[in-house]
Amino acid sequence: MKEKEQKRNKVEDAKGVKIIPLGGLEQIGMNITAIEYEDTIVVIDCGLSFPEDEMLGIDLVIPDVTYLKDNIEKVKGFVITHGHEDHIGSLPYVLKDINVPVYGTKLTMGIIENKLKEHNLLKGTKRKVIKYGQSINLGCFRIEFIRTNHSIQDAAALAIYTPAGIIFHTGDFKVDFTPVYGNPIDLQRIGEIGKKGVLALLCDSTNVERPGYTMSERTVGKTFDSIFSDYSSRRIIVATFASNVDRVQQIINSAVKYGRKIVVEGRSMVNIITTAIDLGYIKMPENTMVDIEHMNNYTDDQLVLITTGSQGESMAALSRMAASIHRKVTIKPGDVVILSSTPIPGNEKAVSKVINELYMKGAKVIYQDTHVSGHACQEEIKLIYSLVKPQYAIPVHGEYKHLIRHAELAEVMGVPKKNIFVLSSGDVLTLSKENAAVTGKVPAQGILVDGLGVGDVGNIVLRDRQLLSENGLMIVVVTLEKYTNQVVAGPDIVSRGFVYVKESENLMEDAKEVVERALDKCISRNNTDWGKIKTEIKESLSDFIWKRTKRNPMILPIIMEV
Amino acid sequence: MKEKEQKRNKVEDAKGVKIIPLGGLEQIGMNITAIEYEDTIVVIDCGLSFPEDEMLGIDLVIPDVTYLKDNIEKVKGFVITHGHEDHIGSLPYVLKDINVPVYGTKLTMGIIENKLKEHNLLKGTKRKVIKYGQSINLGCFRIEFIRTNHSIQDAAALAIYTPAGIIFHTGDFKVDFTPVYGNPIDLQRIGEIGKKGVLALLCDSTNVERPGYTMSERTVGKTFDSIFSDYSSRRIIVATFASNVDRVQQIINSAVKYGRKIVVEGRSMVNIITTAIDLGYIKMPENTMVDIEHMNNYTDDQLVLITTGSQGESMAALSRMAASIHRKVTIKPGDVVILSSTPIPGNEKAVSKVINELYMKGAKVIYQDTHVSGHACQEEIKLIYSLVKPQYAIPVHGEYKHLIRHAELAEVMGVPKKNIFVLSSGDVLTLSKENAAVTGKVPAQGILVDGLGVGDVGNIVLRDRQLLSENGLMIVVVTLEKYTNQVVAGPDIVSRGFVYVKESENLMEDAKEVVERALDKCISRNNTDWGKIKTEIKESLSDFIWKRTKRNPMILPIIMEV
Repeated sequence: MKEKEQKRNKVEDAKGVKIIPLGGLEQIGMNITAIEYEDTIVVIDCGLSFPEDEMLGIDLVIPDVTYLKDNIEKVKGFVITHGHEDHIGSLPYVLKDINVPVYGTKLTMGIIENKLKEHNLLKGTKRKVIKYGQSINLGCFRIEFIRTNHSIQDAAALAIYTPAGIIFHTGDFKVDFTPVYGNPIDLQRIGEIGKKGVLALLCDSTNVERPGYTMSERTVGKTFDSIFSDYSSRRIIVATFASNVDRVQQIINSAVKYGRKIVVEGRSMVNIITTAIDLGYIKMPENTMVDIEHMNNYTDDQLVLITTGSQGESMAALSRMAASIHRKVTIKPGDVVILSSTPIPGNEKAVSKVINELYMKGAKVIYQDTHVSGHACQEEIKLIYSLVKPQYAIPVHGEYKHLIRHAELAEVMGVPKKNIFVLSSGDVLTLSKENAAVTGKVPAQGILVDGLGVGDVGNIVLRDRQLLSENGLMIVVVTLEKYTNQVVAGPDIVSRGFVYVKESENLMEDAKEVVERALDKCISRNNTDWGKIKTEIKESLSDFIWKRTKRNPMILPIIMEV
Repeated sequence: MKEKEQKRNKVEDAKGVKIIPLGGLEQIGMNITAIEYEDTIVVIDCGLSFPEDEMLGIDLVIPDVTYLKDNIEKVKGFVITHGHEDHIGSLPYVLKDINVPVYGTKLTMGIIENKLKEHNLLKGTKRKVIKYGQSINLGCFRIEFIRTNHSIQDAAALAIYTPAGIIFHTGDFKVDFTPVYGNPIDLQRIGEIGKKGVLALLCDSTNVERPGYTMSERTVGKTFDSIFSDYSSRRIIVATFASNVDRVQQIINSAVKYGRKIVVEGRSMVNIITTAIDLGYIKMPENTMVDIEHMNNYTDDQLVLITTGSQGESMAALSRMAASIHRKVTIKPGDVVILSSTPIPGNEKAVSKVINELYMKGAKVIYQDTHVSGHACQEEIKLIYSLVKPQYAIPVHGEYKHLIRHAELAEVMGVPKKNIFVLSSGDVLTLSKENAAVTGKVPAQGILVDGLGVGDVGNIVLRDRQLLSENGLMIVVVTLEKYTNQVVAGPDIVSRGFVYVKESENLMEDAKEVVERALDKCISRNNTDWGKIKTEIKESLSDFIWKRTKRNPMILPIIMEV
């Protein structure tokens, strides 16, 4: 506790504006960054991250906001760059502890409100919709929202005017000169702010490994048109990210152009499309949408289904269709299925599985050249550096390799090496025109959510799940008589996830003998300590099983007493 | 049994040559195909496949060779196309049951012999090295080995001359006009065989999604040269596939050119390089190799390490270096690490993890444009069709999506749709000039290997491992008195992989009460059937836990009797 106090004091003492990522590098996707100056803290985004492969059984990971709780009187609000899960997903969890206002653009706020409604938090949360170009004053900061482009509409970069200088945060962005909806990124304003002098740039690193420029979203629309024209007599099913409202608009455009009705399937797709239509972000002629229940009133050439599941998520609509467990849609030979997305790292095999299953049902599957990224490639990142010309560069959004490659790029763009900071989650970077250093560390380990449990699953539980998943377990139960320690029942051995017991009767019989010998040994030595008896059982059985099977099941001795 | 007999009879009865994949589509990587005509069966390759994500704890998957065992008198030998695991890996398991001669080119046989030695099977196995252009007679077949290119040397295509016509099998291949070692693929001979008239072509589908041509292996050498020149003062570590002997040769070439010594690390890398040097497939000046124990006698600029681990395999040398658990090599700032490979689908995240860890240690990591594929792209596949002009096309090597895209390409190349067959594992395709049809099905499910156990882990065990991995388990133990069924000890509850018990004492106390109530209920109803008591405990505890935690641990009631 004392050490923590000291660290906090250290944070307090350094002069300048503090940049504190509470997630990010160690929890990819969990975008949440505190910006602090004296009595003001503003938090940019509040995302969640999905469990790593080794986090068995975990549903999602949310940030540790202890630092914000400890400084609650300073926290003025959340400013949100855009409405993706990795930027807003933890709000329902965090707002319970940190109940401060939330600021964002119109569509972003619409999506957040949906989320808060589900968690019964809508009434208790102050919210304000901000327009591009508009500023808000929070404590000693002024925060300006600037138009960018991304794979969701209403994405914003943030210029944070602090007493120590301007912090420019791009959010997730790309440069799209011909976006489907709205206008291109406001490069003029970014240049203007750069001209004023920017202290630090926090810039998206996701695509920093890719040379050149990301293609315009509009190019995907042309691909859709050509597919719709090639397969004019067939039913068309398009899977994409629910949140990619522009992509959905383009599917609608092609559908309308080729005289098809639209059916929307998948909970998140229905939610976001409904919100986007309500707020005017999706436009279509009346009577274009058809309820899935009335789908059978139309022929194949009159229909387009827009669905979730483009990442092969096992419970999403497309995966259920592919696996023949969707209640309303049956894939049939001749169907044309478009996957308008590329697999997020880690999802490659799941996506391939869905594609294979769709092919097995006789569908034509189109999954190449049907997607463009929402993130800036190298030349776009360079463009931002040219306009902003920051004193300090802090690469954000990406794995360590991305941040390092981004750091190299920042150096090429003229930021001195000593002014570039690759931060770990929890680092406190204190910046002023004169100085820059990591001056402290705050708690920033991700908190694991499993069912209703928040933080009750930790390393021991995960390690046990790992062991159990690889080799299963053997339970040894024995009942001893009080005082005499004579065996009055058992030993019985029960196994799960180890071997087919029926086919391994010999093994189990022999294992029982091993346990019996271990018990005899303890009794003959007058060993009455249960801990020692358990250890003896565990070790002798473990040795025996390894020799016979070269496997290491978890062995769990349980002693009862009568 | 009768049904099986009937099926077998059906297989026997159809006229023509039979093509029977015993692995492949349902077990990607497990390449093993039986070719049968009357009293002759020859088996092409004998690979293994690695476990799918859901095969928890499984080490590898080998083919079911029941059909070969049932027809052992017909089986004349294994003909092997090249020395990769997915084409030879099951030999040590299968030869124990099917002890017939093995035929392959020189390097292929060298690698097979290493493998047989490890399993003490070398003496008991007849083997013959075959040269390109040479033929062997097996039963009523003549089999010719034809030079191809691949990411391992000595790869061969096979022309199988059967009484029903020629079967042409490409093996894994690419067209490399400027290979590093040896000559380009023998397109002349392939054309000549095609001119004779080929009944069926079995052709590699791995890269059928990629347009154009695969680059020559030689292009990678130029990349190595330029990296060696750019980082002449730093230690260089290159990770690649152990079996890619040409790649290793090119690393050696660059090392020699830039005056560096070579250290080889990783068991499979040492094995294959030793074999390749012994057989004359790797060439280098004397005293180029340095034992890892003497590495410290050299400065960074004098060393290249060649290592395994380019796929992020957790136990491979590079992963251990990245995780700081390698006993002999410590990554330090300034090291240049080249990953000369691309991730195999499913390994993307593991590879990224290693790259991130290397960056964190201050290494420069180079992983783009440092690899070319060993498989043919679309134009190369078309070239083979142009030369072979088969009557029937049977796409092989790939997921279902690859086989379907290959089938589309075969149609474009003039093979009539009805003459193209996408086969499932176990399908019996019977071909003659007049007829072609799938005429039967033989057992071809993969057999799971876990430790020493072959086939003793099945679906129930895997499902249990899955359940345990996601939610852990709760064990309820209770001792009852014989006849009266009174509780004399317990109920005790033990959990693993569920929650931290210390933080959930209330939950566990309440759970115990739930079980006690369930037991009381059984006793009051005079319910003495153990099955029913267990069900009662299971259901009431499961309900309680779900309501409190929204989780579903496995619940295991154990009753003892005194």
